[in-house]
Amino acid sequence: MSSRKHNFSAGPCTLPLTVLEEAQAEFVDYQGAGMSLIEMSHRGKHFDAVANEAMALAMEVSGAPDDFTVLFLQGGAILQFSMVPMNLLKPGLRAGYLNTGTWAKGAITDAREYGDVYVAWDGEADNYARMPAGGEIGIEDGTRYLHVTSNETIGGIQLREWPTVDVPMVADMSSDYLSRPIPWDRLDLVYGGVQKNLGPAGMAVVFVRKSILEETNRDIGRYLRYDIQASKQSMFNTPPVFTIYMLGKVLRWMRDEGGIPEMEARAAAKAALLYDTIDQSGDFYRCPVDVASRSHMNVVFRLPSEDLEAQFLGEAAGADLLNLEGHRNVGGCRASIYNALPHESVAALTDFMRSFQADNG
Amino acid sequence: MSSRKHNFSAGPCTLPLTVLEEAQAEFVDYQGAGMSLIEMSHRGKHFDAVANEAMALAMEVSGAPDDFTVLFLQGGAILQFSMVPMNLLKPGLRAGYLNTGTWAKGAITDAREYGDVYVAWDGEADNYARMPAGGEIGIEDGTRYLHVTSNETIGGIQLREWPTVDVPMVADMSSDYLSRPIPWDRLDLVYGGVQKNLGPAGMAVVFVRKSILEETNRDIGRYLRYDIQASKQSMFNTPPVFTIYMLGKVLRWMRDEGGIPEMEARAAAKAALLYDTIDQSGDFYRCPVDVASRSHMNVVFRLPSEDLEAQFLGEAAGADLLNLEGHRNVGGCRASIYNALPHESVAALTDFMRSFQADNG
Repeated sequence: MSSRKHNFSAGPCTLPLTVLEEAQAEFVDYQGAGMSLIEMSHRGKHFDAVANEAMALAMEVSGAPDDFTVLFLQGGAILQFSMVPMNLLKPGLRAGYLNTGTWAKGAITDAREYGDVYVAWDGEADNYARMPAGGEIGIEDGTRYLHVTSNETIGGIQLREWPTVDVPMVADMSSDYLSRPIPWDRLDLVYGGVQKNLGPAGMAVVFVRKSILEETNRDIGRYLRYDIQASKQSMFNTPPVFTIYMLGKVLRWMRDEGGIPEMEARAAAKAALLYDTIDQSGDFYRCPVDVASRSHMNVVFRLPSEDLEAQFLGEAAGADLLNLEGHRNVGGCRASIYNALPHESVAALTDFMRSFQADNG
Repeated sequence: MSSRKHNFSAGPCTLPLTVLEEAQAEFVDYQGAGMSLIEMSHRGKHFDAVANEAMALAMEVSGAPDDFTVLFLQGGAILQFSMVPMNLLKPGLRAGYLNTGTWAKGAITDAREYGDVYVAWDGEADNYARMPAGGEIGIEDGTRYLHVTSNETIGGIQLREWPTVDVPMVADMSSDYLSRPIPWDRLDLVYGGVQKNLGPAGMAVVFVRKSILEETNRDIGRYLRYDIQASKQSMFNTPPVFTIYMLGKVLRWMRDEGGIPEMEARAAAKAALLYDTIDQSGDFYRCPVDVASRSHMNVVFRLPSEDLEAQFLGEAAGADLLNLEGHRNVGGCRASIYNALPHESVAALTDFMRSFQADNG
């Protein structure tokens, strides 16, 4: 325990220690079966129980209603950038996208290969420092869905209020998945990589409204078809056994800790502590993000100079506060404070920030 | 050790015990870093070293020449069924496929969504009990590639002699990957899921001839583009960290044991022991596969009746000989004897087979 460091990585990232310890204990010999879970057939009784529990927990913890089904798909959120338009767009239908930053731009780029796509709101003019207000989003005729990125991991902005629009939404929730309630009635599909709030890297969790599976496209490869993956309970091919197993453990932890309400409250408290420290620093620390769009998952901040930022990151690492570098494309600092990051880690960071400012401010 | 059972699963399957024990020991705190490897950024120094070593070992152990590059891609071999034609086929080009069984049929089904595909040899008339001889394969004009499935996991047949054709080949080697030499000069691309010979489920290893990356299609989503994945060293998005880490460990084990020559010799010895036991049983055990096409990886056999098969499987399990059921689509028995399955497991199985026959023959 004493050797465990504070890990602010943007993903892959901190997992609950109890989950890691459980997995370690049963790693070589799973429940006395004489082999590791990762050596077992994905059609056998042990993995069957693991997969069923993970699916049931994903539905339970997320609060997904019965008219949604959950899929476990490889290729991360990035493959969903292609699969969503591949499955949902048809001639005569269009898709609107909110251009809110790096990840939204990626979704737009890929979607343009598969259909008629337009930007329904563009944050570029504001340097991606904020999310749109509801009234700013322009939905055009023939729109099949509006794609939103609920949290931009690199920019550090979050769609704090979900928009109300008259078309179904598709949401990329990779970096704030299950840290807040999901507005199911406005959504046809929700997806996200697991490697932030839900487990180790190697999979996306996709919730799909069942009724849309009747009209998804069929003229695509079978791995890429939502209808096939749904009808096969995501076992159309060999699933990523270890990732599903760990996802199940993280979801169980999340449920036992109090579920989304507790995760949301913890995130708000951790974010408040960090943003307050920044705001009370008299401009020594600066958050470049519009206050109303500040992320509760990725807190970005700058120091007065790049030299001071380098010194800050070096001394922080020396104090066991790790992975605070901003994304390599934007620089600065970023503290990612996902579900499993303990409040004490944020307290240690804010103590360090005050002390660093006292020495260098 | 004494609790470890004989695991003949067709995949996921037995891994080297030393690999599992190493991974267990460093699971919670990786090399004193104060966190697990699966909690670390995929851009950090620890995972960077892990990924680079796995890539270097994949090239070394496979014997891939310098004009190939290796990719680690999610979605298993099944996603490659789509990605190969998506990337390689264009108007005016065709692809020939050997229809050798269940997996080949899957590859053909998906390829037909993306281009002009024909069957260059069809094993259906022979009930998929053999692979084609070289002269039986009909290559048509305008063929971009001939797709071969080097080993059919369910049918238990293996392309023991690679064909010589005047077009480049693409090979699905999922179930005999790195158990035999790869004929690089005849191939443009080789792929396979890792969950049989190479590690836990969750990834495909793809070797691509570099020169073909200049002409692959660009009008597809970025995750699905070989040229982008190659230019980003398979780190275009968050990679499946744990799977790559385990792959590296399995490849290191394979290299240290003697590499492909040793794996091939062990497979031949294990296969000979099993097929000899079958052949010497006076038709109590029967292998439905043509002798020249018998797989060195998946040994399928039948008993005189389905009742005896059920009894055989039950008693085998009681003797710690597990996962000997044939694929659910075909029934019967199947012993998968991949690289990491010890010779002693096959010896225990053949002892049991003789004893079962003595009691019930």
